[in-house]
Amino acid sequence: MSKSIKVGLLGLGTVGTGVYKVLTQNAEIIAQRVGTPVTVEKIVVNNVNKKRDIDLPPGIITDRAEAVLDNPDIDIVVEVMGGIEPAREYILKALRGGKHVVTANKDLIAEYGEELFDAEKEHHTDLFFEASVAGGIPIIRPLKQCLAANRVTEVMGIINGTTNFILTKMTQEGSDFDEVLAEAQALGYAEADPTADVDGLDAARKIAILASVAFNTRVTYRDVYVEGIRNIGAMDIKYASELGYTVKLLGIAKDQDGQVEVRVHPVLIPNSHPLAAVNEAFNAIFVRGNAVGETMFYGPGAGELPTASAVVADIIEVARNIISSVTGRISCTCYEQRAIKPIGEIFSKYYLRLIVKDEPGVLASIASVLGNQNVSIATVIQKRSIEDLAEIVLITHQVQEQNLQDALAVIKGMSITKEIANVIRVEGEDE
Amino acid sequence: MSKSIKVGLLGLGTVGTGVYKVLTQNAEIIAQRVGTPVTVEKIVVNNVNKKRDIDLPPGIITDRAEAVLDNPDIDIVVEVMGGIEPAREYILKALRGGKHVVTANKDLIAEYGEELFDAEKEHHTDLFFEASVAGGIPIIRPLKQCLAANRVTEVMGIINGTTNFILTKMTQEGSDFDEVLAEAQALGYAEADPTADVDGLDAARKIAILASVAFNTRVTYRDVYVEGIRNIGAMDIKYASELGYTVKLLGIAKDQDGQVEVRVHPVLIPNSHPLAAVNEAFNAIFVRGNAVGETMFYGPGAGELPTASAVVADIIEVARNIISSVTGRISCTCYEQRAIKPIGEIFSKYYLRLIVKDEPGVLASIASVLGNQNVSIATVIQKRSIEDLAEIVLITHQVQEQNLQDALAVIKGMSITKEIANVIRVEGEDE
Repeated sequence: MSKSIKVGLLGLGTVGTGVYKVLTQNAEIIAQRVGTPVTVEKIVVNNVNKKRDIDLPPGIITDRAEAVLDNPDIDIVVEVMGGIEPAREYILKALRGGKHVVTANKDLIAEYGEELFDAEKEHHTDLFFEASVAGGIPIIRPLKQCLAANRVTEVMGIINGTTNFILTKMTQEGSDFDEVLAEAQALGYAEADPTADVDGLDAARKIAILASVAFNTRVTYRDVYVEGIRNIGAMDIKYASELGYTVKLLGIAKDQDGQVEVRVHPVLIPNSHPLAAVNEAFNAIFVRGNAVGETMFYGPGAGELPTASAVVADIIEVARNIISSVTGRISCTCYEQRAIKPIGEIFSKYYLRLIVKDEPGVLASIASVLGNQNVSIATVIQKRSIEDLAEIVLITHQVQEQNLQDALAVIKGMSITKEIANVIRVEGEDE
Repeated sequence: MSKSIKVGLLGLGTVGTGVYKVLTQNAEIIAQRVGTPVTVEKIVVNNVNKKRDIDLPPGIITDRAEAVLDNPDIDIVVEVMGGIEPAREYILKALRGGKHVVTANKDLIAEYGEELFDAEKEHHTDLFFEASVAGGIPIIRPLKQCLAANRVTEVMGIINGTTNFILTKMTQEGSDFDEVLAEAQALGYAEADPTADVDGLDAARKIAILASVAFNTRVTYRDVYVEGIRNIGAMDIKYASELGYTVKLLGIAKDQDGQVEVRVHPVLIPNSHPLAAVNEAFNAIFVRGNAVGETMFYGPGAGELPTASAVVADIIEVARNIISSVTGRISCTCYEQRAIKPIGEIFSKYYLRLIVKDEPGVLASIASVLGNQNVSIATVIQKRSIEDLAEIVLITHQVQEQNLQDALAVIKGMSITKEIANVIRVEGEDE
């Protein structure tokens, strides 16, 4: 065996602790698979005196980032501190110093990916980021290697565990969003400030990364159209179920004639679609390729050890590359520059829930407005009557978003319309 | 770009045709991803005059294997002819000649893997076999790379599309095996001689390969305990459903205290398990690792283009390795020698369906025999009465197989027992 590969950790939060545990507990099998031991040399933390749940050898932790970044013994820098700065500065410094970097930082990759991968290329180092999307689920490497024979046409994923937990509970219990959010917060599945999760911002960063890798073009999180799940009501889930659908928050990226469609929003998905059965806090990513057809990758999207599984897999890859003197073998795959399709130009089916006056001719009026914008109706059900109001649920055929929005603007202004209670896109079925 | 990478195909059946199509139709993106074009130089077939559905350049097909094996221009030999000989001889000759090999041949890898990987190692070449298990689903590379941080403890898969199609139809239609088999044969989902599929032999080869990769030890198809699905009745599926289970044919491999359990048989799996929702001819492989927890890989397990997706991914990996001068980077991973656990020593829960005399005290007698062998009962339901006979359905707690078999031998000999109608293992739930 050659000399051991030495790792420096930046950060010792949930993921950092997991990485340390996996590298020590599975040290023997990892050494066997790499061909040499992989050991943690230094760990950079903010507060060296903080009490921690793991046993660490004396002298391993430090509050000086230079103890890793300027340490000639360290081969691989593992950035698990999160946030933009100083993570960005540290990663750039590591790459410029010829060190390889493994990161779990979705915010950074989704926003500053280009700068980081340029540095990776310039310095012939490896910068791997499997853990930045969907925690323990292998998806970045499968897209870059296992599915490399395919032109990927579509990536759709449940890539936020908190919102999937909330939607699963709402579905199982028939409860409303606020109630289940409180429950999720009590159980630790949602944070005190749930914005990043429930408003889709976390998923937006992940789908930006997936779209970049799948379509070989740079997509940042600012390119992503985003809607969260705060507006999903118990009634929407109930009606969806009656019509054979499940409500999920998806990150969606599609190759549309060379343009890229990239969005995060709630959808109705047919119960027969493999993503419909993904429940609780689990994640899954559905990939369609022009050779393979439909595939799906399922597993835990977060957590100490699952996320560490992805980080350490990247460490093992870098270590194998170091041993074979072949780092930089597969670097940034954004060869192309594709335009992002504006949301108004996408095509989708839609679920509409409208509250209207309960009087003759109302449905005809609405259908006529929709028809004027080329929105044709696949299914319509008149649901509850509430005093002098009626609730109408519609599913449209495939239509361009702008046409639907134009029709809805007209419907909203009509005297018969009390409320456009919800508009949810329908995904995952053929026209 | 450096010189193009040249491929020689052995075989032009379903998979070979798919490989040719993917390499030509996706040539541009593959060249981009590899860094140089990958082209088919020669194709070896039995009958050069056979009419084929694809357009081929003149002179590309030949019936002389030497046109590939002795061709100094060819870098990668793709064996998609199937069967043991002459595929084995050809692959060995290619490896010994310093050529890299990609194969989809499960029979060969599951039986002669050791000999082939020894030759791969000796000649510092690559021998890849992603397509030998579960068609288009990436699973070999994910086990060797993406999940390399884990001690894998369990691999369970729906790895035969024909039997999954049959069991799905039996479940949806309430029909019996023979009826659905005939339907599957008519639709082309089952062959005229369905033995390899319905008796579990095809799945046995695949689980042997998966077990070898997952547990880093050589497992051949002769090590696999096998039962097929001919004995599954419509009533078994109905009762399973009433109890919250789905009937599937699984390949199962477990790491049990250093020994390997490896088997193929029908199981009852809880409806909440992700494998339970895998229907029709789709395949899926569930992997449990000590860091990642539960993951699952889902997709098409067969077919021209899906299988080609896996073969061409392997070709791309070899091509990248050739360009980086790093072939043999990750070769055979069977570092260990582990014993196979005999079927009598495994622990499982069991579903039993018994036809007994419909008289007082029968259940007590049976429970007493089971109890004498430490088989404790979790659930018991008395189902149909048929004249003077009763049908009893039991689910046991976890018990050692041999104890159950001993109890069943006693029950079979009792005067109250008309028939032990079925015994099916229950998988996928905690005790």
